[in-house]
Amino acid sequence: MVHADPAIDGADTADAPESDLAVARAATPRPIEEVAADLGLAPDEIEPRGDGVAKLTQSAVRSATASEPDGTTVLVTGMTPTPKGEGKTVTTVGLGQALAGLGESTAVAVREPSLGPVFGIKGGAAGGGYSQVLPMESINLHFTGDIHALTAAHNLLSAALDNHLHQGNEEGVDVRRVDWPRALDVNDRALRETVVGLGGPARGVPREDEFVITAASELMAVLGLAEDLSDLKTQIGRIVLAEDADGDPVTPDDLGVTGAAAALLRDAFRPNLVQTIEGVPALVHGGPFANIAHGTNTLVADRVGASLADYLVTEAGFGADLGAEKFAHIVAREGIVPDVAVVVATVRGAKRHGLEMWPADFDALAKTDPEAVRAGVDNVTRHVEIVESLGIPAVVGINVFPDDAESELAALESTLTDAGIPVARSTAYRDGGEGAMPLAELVRERAGTGEFAPLYDLDAPLREKVETVAREVYGADGVEYVDGADEDIDRVEAWGYGDLPVCVSKTPYSFSDDASLTGVPEGWTLTVREVSPSAGAGFVVVKTADVMTMPGLPAEPAAEEIDVDADGNLSGLF
Amino acid sequence: MVHADPAIDGADTADAPESDLAVARAATPRPIEEVAADLGLAPDEIEPRGDGVAKLTQSAVRSATASEPDGTTVLVTGMTPTPKGEGKTVTTVGLGQALAGLGESTAVAVREPSLGPVFGIKGGAAGGGYSQVLPMESINLHFTGDIHALTAAHNLLSAALDNHLHQGNEEGVDVRRVDWPRALDVNDRALRETVVGLGGPARGVPREDEFVITAASELMAVLGLAEDLSDLKTQIGRIVLAEDADGDPVTPDDLGVTGAAAALLRDAFRPNLVQTIEGVPALVHGGPFANIAHGTNTLVADRVGASLADYLVTEAGFGADLGAEKFAHIVAREGIVPDVAVVVATVRGAKRHGLEMWPADFDALAKTDPEAVRAGVDNVTRHVEIVESLGIPAVVGINVFPDDAESELAALESTLTDAGIPVARSTAYRDGGEGAMPLAELVRERAGTGEFAPLYDLDAPLREKVETVAREVYGADGVEYVDGADEDIDRVEAWGYGDLPVCVSKTPYSFSDDASLTGVPEGWTLTVREVSPSAGAGFVVVKTADVMTMPGLPAEPAAEEIDVDADGNLSGLF
Repeated sequence: MVHADPAIDGADTADAPESDLAVARAATPRPIEEVAADLGLAPDEIEPRGDGVAKLTQSAVRSATASEPDGTTVLVTGMTPTPKGEGKTVTTVGLGQALAGLGESTAVAVREPSLGPVFGIKGGAAGGGYSQVLPMESINLHFTGDIHALTAAHNLLSAALDNHLHQGNEEGVDVRRVDWPRALDVNDRALRETVVGLGGPARGVPREDEFVITAASELMAVLGLAEDLSDLKTQIGRIVLAEDADGDPVTPDDLGVTGAAAALLRDAFRPNLVQTIEGVPALVHGGPFANIAHGTNTLVADRVGASLADYLVTEAGFGADLGAEKFAHIVAREGIVPDVAVVVATVRGAKRHGLEMWPADFDALAKTDPEAVRAGVDNVTRHVEIVESLGIPAVVGINVFPDDAESELAALESTLTDAGIPVARSTAYRDGGEGAMPLAELVRERAGTGEFAPLYDLDAPLREKVETVAREVYGADGVEYVDGADEDIDRVEAWGYGDLPVCVSKTPYSFSDDASLTGVPEGWTLTVREVSPSAGAGFVVVKTADVMTMPGLPAEPAAEEIDVDADGNLSGLF
Repeated sequence: MVHADPAIDGADTADAPESDLAVARAATPRPIEEVAADLGLAPDEIEPRGDGVAKLTQSAVRSATASEPDGTTVLVTGMTPTPKGEGKTVTTVGLGQALAGLGESTAVAVREPSLGPVFGIKGGAAGGGYSQVLPMESINLHFTGDIHALTAAHNLLSAALDNHLHQGNEEGVDVRRVDWPRALDVNDRALRETVVGLGGPARGVPREDEFVITAASELMAVLGLAEDLSDLKTQIGRIVLAEDADGDPVTPDDLGVTGAAAALLRDAFRPNLVQTIEGVPALVHGGPFANIAHGTNTLVADRVGASLADYLVTEAGFGADLGAEKFAHIVAREGIVPDVAVVVATVRGAKRHGLEMWPADFDALAKTDPEAVRAGVDNVTRHVEIVESLGIPAVVGINVFPDDAESELAALESTLTDAGIPVARSTAYRDGGEGAMPLAELVRERAGTGEFAPLYDLDAPLREKVETVAREVYGADGVEYVDGADEDIDRVEAWGYGDLPVCVSKTPYSFSDDASLTGVPEGWTLTVREVSPSAGAGFVVVKTADVMTMPGLPAEPAAEEIDVDADGNLSGLF
C-alpha cells in the first residue's frame, strides 16, 4: 500500500515511489545501546523494549533532568496547514539528521502516534520516507504501552468517581456536572454521547457520559507537562473531575486515588528512545492534542534531549498560531525555551491560501500555479512574525513535494527572501538528512540570536490573556464571549485558576476561528464559547467551537487493509 | 500493607508475617537470559521487556511449538474453593520449584493478573510468599501489555461494528441483537449497562451496550486457545459479533477487520518469560475467566513449556469441576494433555463443607475443628474422582496455612489416605520449593500412569454434552432448560456450532449451580438459562445464571492504598 498521510500534520506523499514501510524495512538500524551511547547513556541507563526500542530508566531520567538543559532547542512549527499537513514531522526528523550530519550531537523529539487514527484514516505516523523514525511497526502498534497506561489511569479515575457516586456520594458530586469523560484509544463515534449506570441499583448511578480518545485525555497533557513523578502526582491530584453541589471542584485527591493513577503512569513517564532511519537518537514520548492541549511531545523528553545532546529538534502541532504560541506560553515556562524555530511551509499550503480555497481540493492544488503560491505567502510570513514576536528567531523550511514545480518553489522561496526572511528548501522525505543540510546550516546560524519573551504575564486576568493571544497572535479585532463563557471564566477565576496560561482551542486551518478565512484574515472577532480548567495540566482551555475529542471511522477504515501473516509480518499499516 | 489475597483462587495469607512485596524485594532474581537458557532459549530468542521480563520471539515460539510437546504436564486444580481461594497459584509455583529442586528441568505456567482486581479488592496476583512469580510489580501493572492489546483489539471490533451500522449497515445487523460488548481492564460497575450512539446522526446509531472486563472478552479466550498466528486469525474471523435481520451471525470476517485485530494481538500472542522467586522459568500468559471461558493460561505457553522443559506445571481456575473439566474437554483436545493432576485442598476449605457453611465466615473457619474438616473431605475426594474419571492420575496437595492446627491437618490427610488417595502436605508459601518436595515426589511417581479419556465425543449433540458434564462431573440428576435456553441451543446448532465442546458457567462454590449446596450435593437438577457460542474460541457457553463480567469497586478500593514515590517505588500494591 502506498503511503498516504504519515503524521498528524505530516507530509503528504501520494506520489512517493516507495512506501514508508519498504524504506523502513530496507534500513539497517543501529543497536539501541549504540544510539543511547550517542547521548552519553550507559547500557544500564536504558531498558530494552523490543528491537530498537528502549525506555530510559528512572535514574537516567532523574540525572538527565537534574539541571537546566544547556543544549540548543530547535522548535519545528508551521504555516496554516491543509488537512493533509505540510510535513512538520518529516522536517523535524530530516533536520535532526542534517544537524547530526554536520557533526552536531543531536536528538529529535516527536509525539507518539495514537492507535485510533492508525486504524481509521492515517495508516501510521512516524515521519516518512528517508526522514522517519524506526521501528515504525512497533511505534505505530502499542509501542511501549504509554498510551495504554494513560487509558488505564484515566478510566481508573472514571471508575473511582462513579464508585463514589454509588457508595453514597460523600463529596456531594453533582451528577449533572461531571467533567471527566472515559477514554479509549480508538476512533469510535458511537461513544461520543452515552448514558452509563443503567440497570438498577447494582449497576451504579445513571448519568450522561462521553468517551474521548486517549490523546485528548487531560492525563495526556499532565504526562506531557510534569517535571518529575512528584509533580505528576501533584498535577493528577488537582484535576477537576466534577463539581459538587456547591459548585466546587471534586478532584482525584478528594477521592483518594491520585497515587493509584500515578502508579499506573510510573513507567509511561519515562521517555522512549528509538532512532531515525539514519540512526540519530529520537525521543518519542507523549502525544496531546494541539487544540484542547499543548500539542507537543513531553517536557521530560525535551529536557532529556536538550540535556544530553547539543541540539534538540522538537515539534509542535499545527501552525505557529497554535503550536508555537502554546509552546511559548505553556511549555517554555516550564524550562524548555526554543533558541530558534523552523516554520515549515509548502507550495501546496501557500497555494491554498493564494486561491482562498476552503475546503482544500487536492486535485486542484496539484495544478502548477506560481502566482497562487506567491499570493499565499503572506500566511507564511505572518507565522514567522508570530514566532519572532515571542523573541524566537525564525527560519522558513520549504518542505519539497515530488510534484512541486520549480517555478512554484522559486515563487515561494523568492517572495520570502524578498521579505527578508531566512529560507531553505528541504527534500528530507526523499533524501534524508542530506536534503535538509541547507536548512540545518540556517538553523545553526540563527539559533540563540533572539531573547525569548512571552506575550503575556501569568498574573494578568484570564480575559486579558485571551485578548492578547487573539489580537497579537491571531490578528483578531477583539474577543466575544457567548453561551455562558463569561460565567465560565468567572467560575474558573473563583476556583483559583486565573493565573494559569490559556490554551485556545480553535480551527488549525485559519488564523481565525473560521476555517474558511484563508491567508491572514482581518476585521474579525474571536468567539469564545466555553472556558474550562485543565487544572491538572496547568492551563485554562478556551474553546471557540465544539472540539471533536472522539474521532469516527470512515466508510472504509484503514483497519480493513491491515493484516498480519503467519510469520508475524504486518501489512497495510503504512 | 500485609498481603491479603494474592490470586484469583490464590492463597489466603492473612497471618503471613511478611508481605509478598517484602519477600519479593529481598529476592535476587537471576538475569532473564540465564532463566531462558534453562529452557534452551538463546539470548536472541527472547526480547527483554524490562528487568527480569522477556517475550519469546516469534521464531522461538514457532520452533518450540513445531512438534508435539514431549514434557510431562502437571495440571494444578483444586477442591471447591472458598471465595478467598485455596492457594492453587502458590502450589503451582512451589511445586515447580520443588521439581526443579529435584533436578528436573521445569517450567511453570500461570495466568496474567488483570488490573481491575489489582485496584479493586485484590492487591496483586502472582502467587505469594516464597512461591511467587517475579517481578511482581511489573506483572501486576501493565506487564508486557498483553491485556492492553486485547482491550485495543476488542474495542476495534466494537468500533468497526458500530461504524458498520453508521455507514449504512450493509450486513443488515439487528441492533437489538448485538452480542459483542466493549471491554476495559477496570472494575467499573457503571459500565455494566449503557446506551451508546446518542446525540444524533453524527454520533452513530443508538443502542444498548455493555462493557466487560477485558479478561472476560472472547478475544482473551481466543488468545488462549490459538495454536499459531494463522489459527488466531481464523478464530477471530468467526467470532459472532451480532445477528443480522435473518438471525445469521455477523463476524469480523464479514466486516473485514479480522487482520487488523490480529495485527494488534501479534505480540500479545508471544508468551512472556519471567521467573519464580527461586529462579525457575515461569511463563505468565493470558488470563481468561474460568466460568464463561476455559480459565487457564494460554495453550501456546503450555506448548512452549512442555516442549522446552521436562516438566510443565500449569494451573486451571476454580475447582476440578470447572477448571480441570474444561482443561480436559477444551484445552487438552488442542494437544496439551495432563499427565498428572494436583487437587489442592485446605483445612479451611474442607471445614467449610464439613460445617455446611455458606456464605463463608472466615472468623468461624479459623476455629480449630478437626471433626468438621473430616466431614468435609468428601468434597475433596469427589474432585479427585472427577480428575481420575478423565484418565488423569490425581494426587492431593494440602496447602498448609500458618494457623492450621496439626489435628486438622492430620484429619484431612488421614481421611484422604484412608480413602486410598495419594496426598502430601505443601508449605510452599512459607518454605518455597523445599516445602513442596513431598508433593513433587508424589507427582513424579504418579505422572503418566493414566490414559486420558474425555467424557464426551465432540460430535454428540450439545444437549448430550451438557448432560454428560452435569451428571458425570457435577453429580446432577439431570438438566433443565429455561428462559429460552432450548431455543438458544437450536440456534447454535443451526449455525453449525453443535460440534464444539461446551463451557458451563456456574458458581465455583458448589458442585451444583447453587452456591449454598456444600459438600457433594445430590438430588438436584442443573438449570441452564442461556446458551451462546464463543465461536471464535471454539466452545459453546452454557450459562446457569447471570455471570458478572464487569466487577465493581468496593467502598474502599485497593486503589486508595496504592502509591508511587518520587523515586518510582510502588507501595500498597500487595
